[in-house]
Amino acid sequence: MTKTLPAGSVIGILGGGQLGRMLSVAAARLGYKTHIYEPMANPPAADVAHAVTTAPYEDLTALEAFAKSVAIVTYEFENIPTTALDAIEAVCPIHPNRRALSVSQDRLIEKSFLRDLGLATAPYAAVDDATDLAEALDEIGAPAILKTRRLGYDGKGQARLKSVADADTALADMQGASAILEGFVAFSHEVSVIAARNLSGEVAAFDPGENVHEGGILRTTTVPARLTEAQRTDAVLLSAKILNALNYVGVMGVELFVTPKGLIVNEIAPRVHNSGHWTQNGCAVDQFEQHIRAIAGWPLGDGSRHSDVVMENLIGNDIDRIPDIAQERNAAIHLYGKAEARPGRKMGHVNRIAG
Amino acid sequence: MTKTLPAGSVIGILGGGQLGRMLSVAAARLGYKTHIYEPMANPPAADVAHAVTTAPYEDLTALEAFAKSVAIVTYEFENIPTTALDAIEAVCPIHPNRRALSVSQDRLIEKSFLRDLGLATAPYAAVDDATDLAEALDEIGAPAILKTRRLGYDGKGQARLKSVADADTALADMQGASAILEGFVAFSHEVSVIAARNLSGEVAAFDPGENVHEGGILRTTTVPARLTEAQRTDAVLLSAKILNALNYVGVMGVELFVTPKGLIVNEIAPRVHNSGHWTQNGCAVDQFEQHIRAIAGWPLGDGSRHSDVVMENLIGNDIDRIPDIAQERNAAIHLYGKAEARPGRKMGHVNRIAG
Repeated sequence: MTKTLPAGSVIGILGGGQLGRMLSVAAARLGYKTHIYEPMANPPAADVAHAVTTAPYEDLTALEAFAKSVAIVTYEFENIPTTALDAIEAVCPIHPNRRALSVSQDRLIEKSFLRDLGLATAPYAAVDDATDLAEALDEIGAPAILKTRRLGYDGKGQARLKSVADADTALADMQGASAILEGFVAFSHEVSVIAARNLSGEVAAFDPGENVHEGGILRTTTVPARLTEAQRTDAVLLSAKILNALNYVGVMGVELFVTPKGLIVNEIAPRVHNSGHWTQNGCAVDQFEQHIRAIAGWPLGDGSRHSDVVMENLIGNDIDRIPDIAQERNAAIHLYGKAEARPGRKMGHVNRIAG
Repeated sequence: MTKTLPAGSVIGILGGGQLGRMLSVAAARLGYKTHIYEPMANPPAADVAHAVTTAPYEDLTALEAFAKSVAIVTYEFENIPTTALDAIEAVCPIHPNRRALSVSQDRLIEKSFLRDLGLATAPYAAVDDATDLAEALDEIGAPAILKTRRLGYDGKGQARLKSVADADTALADMQGASAILEGFVAFSHEVSVIAARNLSGEVAAFDPGENVHEGGILRTTTVPARLTEAQRTDAVLLSAKILNALNYVGVMGVELFVTPKGLIVNEIAPRVHNSGHWTQNGCAVDQFEQHIRAIAGWPLGDGSRHSDVVMENLIGNDIDRIPDIAQERNAAIHLYGKAEARPGRKMGHVNRIAG
C-alpha cells in the first residue's frame, strides 16, 4: 500500500508561473498547502499559495530551508539546475523523478530514450560541429531543423534549414552549444496525451487533445481530437509505456504528430501541460489535481470527460478580449494575474464547453 | 456603463472560512488578488489568499488598515458587527450592501420585508415576552418554533414548541433576546435559488437545487430539483424580485419550501451559499465567480448548467470516507484544509457529476 500524504501537509512547488498557480489551487482542493519557490518577485502562484520563497536557484541555503519546510517537492518546469535538485533531494523527495528530468532536459537523450522504447520519432542526429552537421544533413536531408540539445539557453534555440546552404548560419545560431538535427515530419495535425502515473504505479490518461500552434505558441486545444479509435488507443498506450519506463510519478504531456504511417512522438514534458488545461472544465478531476493526486499517494482520477471543450490561450493583447469573452455562454475564464501583457506572454486561457 | 474593477486589484473578504476560500480562488481566476480579514488564526482561506489580516472585528484600526489595502470589500457571512461595517464603509464600498445585511440579520425584519414584497412566508409574530408569546400561539397555533430575531448568539437559538405547554421553557431558551414565533409549514421539500445581481442591475440565477438537511445541517443538494416548470419560473422570479428590491449586488441564497399552495420563502442569505456549491462542477461560471463578477463590475454568467450534479457535504468524520470517494468516477472533491474534524464541522464537499 502506498502511504497518502497526510491532510494539511505542505507541497513545495519549484516555479511560480501559471502552472504553479493552478497546481496550488488543486493542492488546496485536496486539503494540502503549497510553498512556492520562485526567483522572480510576485509570481502568479503567490496569489493562491500558503507560502512563497523568492530566491534564485543558485541559493542553496534558501533551497535547503524550502525543502525542510515541505513534505515533498514538485515542479512546473523542467529546466531546473542539477545543483538545485541535489540540494532539495538531500532533504525530501522530488516528483517526477530525476530520470524524467534528465531525459526531457536533453533532446538527444529524449529521442534515444524514445527510440529504445520502440517508439517512432523524427529522424535525428547529434551535431557538435560542422562535420557532424554535414553528415547529419547527408543522412536526414533538408529541410530540417537544428536545435540545441538542452533547453533554456536564452538567445539560443532553433534554426530552420531550408537547404544544405543554410548549414553554416544554423550552426552559428547554436553559439557552440551541443545540438541535434531533426528531419521534418509530414504530419496532418498534432495531438497530445496528458497522462499520469501515481506512487502505486497506476496509470491514467485524459482523452487526447488536438493542438493548433501559432508562432511557436499553443493557440488552441480541442477535445476530442481527430483520431481513429486505433490511433486513440495507440496514443494512450505509448504514453503509458513512457511513464512506466521512467518509473514516473506525476502528470506528463506527450506531444504526438499524426501521420499516415502512425503516431510520431514529438516531445515529452515532465509536468502539467498547457494542452491539458481543458480538463479544468471537462473532467471531474483536472490535470492539476491529477498531478497532486499522483505525487501525494492518492488514487488517480480515471480521466473520463463529462464535456467536450475547446481551450484557447489568451496571449499578449488577447487579454483585451476578456470583456467580450465574459459575455459568452459556457466560456470558463482562467486568468493568471500577470500585470503586464507583453507580446507572446500567456495571460490566461478560456475553456469553451460544448453544449 | 459600469466600471470594471481593474485586473490586479485587491478584493477584501470578511471571513476566512470555506466560503472565503472558494471566493478567493474564484477572484484569482478573474485576475484579482484577495485580502482575508478573519479573527481566527490560520483560517481555510489563508491557504489561497494574497494577504491575511488576523484581528477581531472590534479592532477598528486593523479594519481601517484592511479597508485601505483593498479596492472593495465583500463578506462570507452575514453576522458582521455594525461598527466594523461603519469603519470599512468610511474607506471603501461594501457589496452586498448594508440594507441586505440588516434585513438578513434580523428574522423579523426579513419576514416583514418579504411580506411587503408580496411573497409568502411562514406565519410569524414578534415575541418579546410571555404575553407576546401567548398571543402569538393563540394566532399561529402549535406546533411552532421560537427563534431569536438576530443570529449568532452562541447558546441561544431555536426552541420547538410541540404544544402551548412548552411556552415557558421555549421563552427561557431565548435568554431575554427578542424573538419571533414561526408557524410550521407543511412542505414536501426544500429548494434554493442561487441568484446574482451585478453593478449594472443585471440579474441571473442558477437552476434551483433541492436540499436535504440532517440535524439542521445541509446534507445534499441535487440539481435539477423536483419542480414543475411553473414552480421553477416562480422560484427564479421571486428571487429576482428580492434582489431588485434590495438594490443587491452579489450572490444571494434564497431558501424556499415547496408546498401544494406554492413556494414559501424560508430565509435569504446575502452571500454565496452551501447549496450553490454544485455550480463548481455543473456550470462554466460557478457561484463564487458569479459573486466576484457581480461585485467587480463584470457581466454575469448566465447560470446555465452543462451537467447535473449531486453535492454532498462532508461533515465531521465524513472526511474519513475520502479514500473511497477518491476512487469514484466523476466525483469532484473539494476539501477546506481544516485540521480537526469536529462533529458538525463542514470539512469539505463532493460534487458528483451525472453521466
